[in-house]
Amino acid sequence: MYRTVTCGELRLADAGKIVTLAGWVQRIRKMGGMTFIDLRDRYGITQLAFNQGTEAFEKANGLGREFVLQVVGQVIERQAKNPQLPTGEIEIDVKQLTILNPAVTPPFTIEDETDGGDDLRMKYRYLDLRRQCVRKNLELRHKMAFEVRRYLDEQGFLEVETPVLVNSTPEGARDFVVPSRMNPGLFYALPQSPQTLKQLLMVSGFDRYFQIVKCFRDEDLRADRQPEFTQIDCEMSFVEQEDILNMFEGMSRHLFKTILNIDLPKLPRMTWADAMKYYGSDKPDTRFDMTFVELHDIFHAAEANKAEEERFSVFANAAYIGGICAKGCATYTRKQLDALTEFVKRPQIGAKGMVYARVEENGNVKSSVDKFYSQDVLQQIAAEMKAESGDLILILSGDDAMKTRKQLSELRLEMGKQLGLRDPKKFSCLWVIDFPMYEWSDEENRLMAMHHPFTSPKPEDIPLLDTDPASVRANAYDMVINGVEVGGGSIRIHDAQLQEKIFEILGFTKEEAQTKFGFLMNAFKYGAPPHGGLAYGLDRFVSLFAGLDSIRDCIAFPKNNQGRDVMLGAPGVLDPIQLDELMLDIRKK
Amino acid sequence: MYRTVTCGELRLADAGKIVTLAGWVQRIRKMGGMTFIDLRDRYGITQLAFNQGTEAFEKANGLGREFVLQVVGQVIERQAKNPQLPTGEIEIDVKQLTILNPAVTPPFTIEDETDGGDDLRMKYRYLDLRRQCVRKNLELRHKMAFEVRRYLDEQGFLEVETPVLVNSTPEGARDFVVPSRMNPGLFYALPQSPQTLKQLLMVSGFDRYFQIVKCFRDEDLRADRQPEFTQIDCEMSFVEQEDILNMFEGMSRHLFKTILNIDLPKLPRMTWADAMKYYGSDKPDTRFDMTFVELHDIFHAAEANKAEEERFSVFANAAYIGGICAKGCATYTRKQLDALTEFVKRPQIGAKGMVYARVEENGNVKSSVDKFYSQDVLQQIAAEMKAESGDLILILSGDDAMKTRKQLSELRLEMGKQLGLRDPKKFSCLWVIDFPMYEWSDEENRLMAMHHPFTSPKPEDIPLLDTDPASVRANAYDMVINGVEVGGGSIRIHDAQLQEKIFEILGFTKEEAQTKFGFLMNAFKYGAPPHGGLAYGLDRFVSLFAGLDSIRDCIAFPKNNQGRDVMLGAPGVLDPIQLDELMLDIRKK
Repeated sequence: MYRTVTCGELRLADAGKIVTLAGWVQRIRKMGGMTFIDLRDRYGITQLAFNQGTEAFEKANGLGREFVLQVVGQVIERQAKNPQLPTGEIEIDVKQLTILNPAVTPPFTIEDETDGGDDLRMKYRYLDLRRQCVRKNLELRHKMAFEVRRYLDEQGFLEVETPVLVNSTPEGARDFVVPSRMNPGLFYALPQSPQTLKQLLMVSGFDRYFQIVKCFRDEDLRADRQPEFTQIDCEMSFVEQEDILNMFEGMSRHLFKTILNIDLPKLPRMTWADAMKYYGSDKPDTRFDMTFVELHDIFHAAEANKAEEERFSVFANAAYIGGICAKGCATYTRKQLDALTEFVKRPQIGAKGMVYARVEENGNVKSSVDKFYSQDVLQQIAAEMKAESGDLILILSGDDAMKTRKQLSELRLEMGKQLGLRDPKKFSCLWVIDFPMYEWSDEENRLMAMHHPFTSPKPEDIPLLDTDPASVRANAYDMVINGVEVGGGSIRIHDAQLQEKIFEILGFTKEEAQTKFGFLMNAFKYGAPPHGGLAYGLDRFVSLFAGLDSIRDCIAFPKNNQGRDVMLGAPGVLDPIQLDELMLDIRKK
Repeated sequence: MYRTVTCGELRLADAGKIVTLAGWVQRIRKMGGMTFIDLRDRYGITQLAFNQGTEAFEKANGLGREFVLQVVGQVIERQAKNPQLPTGEIEIDVKQLTILNPAVTPPFTIEDETDGGDDLRMKYRYLDLRRQCVRKNLELRHKMAFEVRRYLDEQGFLEVETPVLVNSTPEGARDFVVPSRMNPGLFYALPQSPQTLKQLLMVSGFDRYFQIVKCFRDEDLRADRQPEFTQIDCEMSFVEQEDILNMFEGMSRHLFKTILNIDLPKLPRMTWADAMKYYGSDKPDTRFDMTFVELHDIFHAAEANKAEEERFSVFANAAYIGGICAKGCATYTRKQLDALTEFVKRPQIGAKGMVYARVEENGNVKSSVDKFYSQDVLQQIAAEMKAESGDLILILSGDDAMKTRKQLSELRLEMGKQLGLRDPKKFSCLWVIDFPMYEWSDEENRLMAMHHPFTSPKPEDIPLLDTDPASVRANAYDMVINGVEVGGGSIRIHDAQLQEKIFEILGFTKEEAQTKFGFLMNAFKYGAPPHGGLAYGLDRFVSLFAGLDSIRDCIAFPKNNQGRDVMLGAPGVLDPIQLDELMLDIRKK
């Protein structure tokens, strides 16, 4: 060992000891007859003191940032203590200094507040990772993964490694593929998730399976997506939805307690229908209320009594009118309100406009549609919305209720942000349940599985499969924290006849179903237990716990939006010999 | 939950309880007025009893093997107890039987001793995994991985996930590659190991890193090789070889204790030179002695006194003559000895022949080369080999000492096997240390790095780099258990000048070194700490603990020798649309 202690452990009680330390030069301060160096390692920072006239002093003055040192010295009490630092009461009177490795000047400062831009930091990610604020995210990730394993192990789950070189999955996103040299012309696929394999493990009787596992999706990358990401993948046999919700609520409780020392209350459950109705989102941020109030009936009643030419055609023709109440925001200026209107009109959100109404001190409601509606109607609106003096009402409307709700959801989140209601240190968790089985795809002109085709319908909704499939609810559930879907899953179908019916509704012929899913269906013939499960996105889960906006910051070596690792230079050019061995040619543009 | 108890937990103390069980039909026995079913789940087997005249009895008689059942019944004491079974004192008097899923007859019996051949079991791996003997290997794997994590976490190691989509590595085996759709014509590589990335993490100051991680090698598959395999990958900073040996000896001790309840003694250390000299192998099976004795000097002295025509030319011209002593094997028949001769002459081993000598009851030595050597010489041999009455001496010779030793090693292992000295339940662990830095490659006509080019030489051997590089020993080490290399690693070079010199000896120009390794070398410029590490093969480690011959049996979904997963049908044909998106063409043969 090059050290007897780390840079994070010495305290005043250690004064007098002779110690050996090793680490990196964080900072050098020359003050007349003394030179001070902050020596850094993963565990902390310790101040080194060098006295003029010593050999070590001369050497110390020749050092630069990020040099790697080994020092031997005596622990002494500091004159000027630093209460910010756990080691701030002591320093090392250095007797002997060895330069283990010199360092050229790094391209950016290794500090929490660095001068390095994103691209530069990604190129030198190994230096970026030296910054304490970055490293602590990865320490958190380690701890969370470890506690997940500890909890699941205690609950009798077995971690089973499933293969990375698998076959292409039907009905998913785009696969990454791997050409097989031993089987020229054939390709492996990298798994988008071990869904099929974990279901097979249930058929095998593994009973309780989990895996913290890399998954891969070749999608066009949006912000906060990575081509490779990590799932906490779980499956259980002989269970119903209630069992799974309890088991994984327990896991979350364990994580909140052991990692953040937060006692998680019993998770509320919200149906998907309510989530859409009150938050316009299947992953509502419940750190703050500001829930939607539907105003369609009041406005339509008001319109009904009017002459054609007096009507506010926007509302009169709207399929959906909904509002949110921003407490205490009646003081918003015209400029602020115009900015909100611009916000909802951005193409990513797509609203046509926004109506607002302030409840004034005297109780009067002053709105942007005063010329269309009487104070009486506006008072009805305020009452419906429980808006009080000083509150601001924001209203969106549209032809498509679902789309308008999503727009209103964005507005709600923006208001939550502006009002400081989305504190990353505060956590609000819930289950969203009773997802619909299907969603209509305009593109494919058919019903699509909202989760995946193995998701089971609610038993009481099974009769609806014949009459009104779009209204059938699934035994599917998501865990949502602070507006982020951290996990989700479903109870699977284990009945062959029911599965056939589901395929039929999804528009597959028997032959197509066999071709696409025959592999799993065949396995099910040999005795499949009732089973279900879920998967958490570890990257998201960690970034939530870390209070980060992006998953990238809790990944050691992330890829950029072009799917490139600029540090490694991946992807790169292949040696022509490899292409020959793989029997592949690259097409010319 | 479909059950209140599992099939493994009921005992006599539970008699009288009403319970619900779920599981698979292992066996059905109809005995007049009673039908008995063994119900199986992951946790055990419970006997169900059905009485004639009940509805459940009628249903039970219609069941087949591997049906999935749920039963409600009362725990009762068994008439005929089964002491082999933890639940063997009770059975369930079934009141109610629900068929959760029927099963078609499986293609082989789900028993420890199955009638299914390898290919069939691989095709239906999900049924093979139902067999207790297979599943328990995966339970062991889970436990070992978990205990590895627990130990390393306690020692302050952080598990950091490194990417799977990386760049091609220089100087390794063949990479699997992944075409990038977003960067047409460019390819990612799958990592052969996270070697470079873990060294970068040391540059980042992570201090103690580990990862249980999938690695990939596109090699022509020999027995016991898989294209994807799992490593316990570790690296530490500010350490010397001694620190690493102690840390990971501790890990092995922890595993042996927690998993097998074996107290591992302090691991002996053997130099590579001694391992080759006494065992002819860098991974000696030390469960038994039978070490090599070099006989060159005695035979050559004997030859020296003879006339040319009386000489035994095989020995007279041999560069190496070595023997092993098989205790008590003087009774080996001529047929057995001929079989041993055939064994060493097989092309995989390649010896020209074998000389043997029996020490008879009266102390006389009777050999296959009696006509060339006097009893006096043979007595010298017996004495040198510490052979006693009743022992058998087996001798190989050859022009190339290293090759002959390897042949003698195979013979030693075969004798160990024949004598039952290689009990898979007995463990003999050691460190093999002081590996040579280089080995000569006839193919490349240059020195090659035995470990990898970042391995550091022993400080005391550094002067030899200039004069006799082939004799330089490395700070490299392997952990060997029962003749299997379960792990290995080295202290890395952190000194830029020394690294340059090593590249020079390996025959790289400065430019080549920069092209191949510049990426890591550049990172080192920013302050690399002294560091080192090692990696264990988890598959091997588990199969050793399980007493298995092949790693395949401790992998949930292994690939066959053609790299195929016959269950998944991977690799498979790619959709032409995918090839278009990837801008790739498959060459016609």
